[in-house]
Amino acid sequence: MQRYEIFWRLLITASRILFFFCTFAGANNFETMKHYRKELTFNTTSRREFINITPYVDACLRESGIKEGFVLCNAMHITSSVFINDDESGLHHDFELWLEKLAPEKPHSQYRHNGFEDNADAHLKRQIMGREVVVAITNGKLDFGTWEQIFYGEFDGKRPKRVLVKIIGI
Amino acid sequence: MQRYEIFWRLLITASRILFFFCTFAGANNFETMKHYRKELTFNTTSRREFINITPYVDACLRESGIKEGFVLCNAMHITSSVFINDDESGLHHDFELWLEKLAPEKPHSQYRHNGFEDNADAHLKRQIMGREVVVAITNGKLDFGTWEQIFYGEFDGKRPKRVLVKIIGI
Amino acid sequence: MQRYEIFWRLLITASRILFFFCTFAGANNFETMKHYRKELTFNTTSRREFINITPYVDACLRESGIKEGFVLCNAMHITSSVFINDDESGLHHDFELWLEKLAPEKPHSQYRHNGFEDNADAHLKRQIMGREVVVAITNGKLDFGTWEQIFYGEFDGKRPKRVLVKIIGI
Repeated sequence: MQRYEIFWRLLITASRILFFFCTFAGANNFETMKHYRKELTFNTTSRREFINITPYVDACLRESGIKEGFVLCNAMHITSSVFINDDESGLHHDFELWLEKLAPEKPHSQYRHNGFEDNADAHLKRQIMGREVVVAITNGKLDFGTWEQIFYGEFDGKRPKRVLVKIIGI
Repeated sequence: MQRYEIFWRLLITASRILFFFCTFAGANNFETMKHYRKELTFNTTSRREFINITPYVDACLRESGIKEGFVLCNAMHITSSVFINDDESGLHHDFELWLEKLAPEKPHSQYRHNGFEDNADAHLKRQIMGREVVVAITNGKLDFGTWEQIFYGEFDGKRPKRVLVKIIGI
Repeated sequence: MQRYEIFWRLLITASRILFFFCTFAGANNFETMKHYRKELTFNTTSRREFINITPYVDACLRESGIKEGFVLCNAMHITSSVFINDDESGLHHDFELWLEKLAPEKPHSQYRHNGFEDNADAHLKRQIMGREVVVAITNGKLDFGTWEQIFYGEFDGKRPKRVLVKIIGI
């Protein structure tokens, strides 16, 4: 085995080690998109109710380990809402009166949907308050303004109903 | 060619094969974010109409091959909506009456927007019903509660109007 | 050094060059999910106002370099909205009158939320107009229909208030 042979082989080996290193170091930069899913269940004692679900969504985000991305949080039922507003009981009382004014529950007979059902008003109220929120995730946290809180808005309760939390990001 | 030469060369070849294998196997784990786009067009025969577009969005999702992520489905016009609610004709009748009560079409003169146009009410109705929905994708399916269906809500129809389906995920 | 030796070495070198090429070419396909965040601040001179913020969101998108994905644009306050509709002053006048009819500001005493505050109506108006929009990005552009424009809807202004632009994609 001649000298240049040894040199040649060392060069090959060195380049191979460098190559392995680059590839695996590089691989760590190729963060693939992560995803997370959880269902939350709420069973209200009254027909209509607002529940602050921010702590639950926060826990989902921490569990997901996702640092940058979007959270989708939506009612899985068509007579309830997920929305963002203020955690102030006076305002929630105002919401209740206001929604009853815009889409009154009674008389049930005023709605063609009501026959076997009596919840047409809940379908209407949910359109005003919305089905879902999409919240930015930044540095592993819900990227919120000072007063933003996520609420589950129930308009036809007294039974277990589900909310979906789906998170995508890196 | 000596013995150790042969051994050396076999070792190099074996490591190279292993390396190729690892790299390409690894590559499959580096799923990059996929994206998909489609426009749907609807031309209603009446001024106001609700169309269940879930089957179209479902077909888009299957075509995209995306298994985990988000679907965005939005009206590309500002006088129509995409929303999620119940596929029940009685309820759709209730929606029509309710929206006409909250944002009546006539008299056209009550709105400053109406002059060359006569569709101010459609711009208002669309705000109540919403522009878009974001739906989670899980295991290649629209991640829906039992009764959730996607609707195109037309408030100023009788002409071809577009809905955008954009999907991102892996 | 024999002939087959030279041939062997050339083969190795060629395959190595090919391999490098494939790996780095491949690496460019493994685009990881990118993300971008910016806060916009608006300080209106009147209590209620609509501002077309499309140019600002557009600038964010260009700065992000993201070509395919979603933009989330949301009010960081709970008395303002981000929504998509027409950039027509007559319509904005109609919105103002309509929102005042559905959720009148005065008398302030009609709302339980009003005591230290006087902005209960702004919390209600924001529910009708919505907190956020999610817009598709295609080929590096906001994927909009002809007349779609993004607005900041202020319902309790005369102070600096923030809008979040968060973009994810590739």
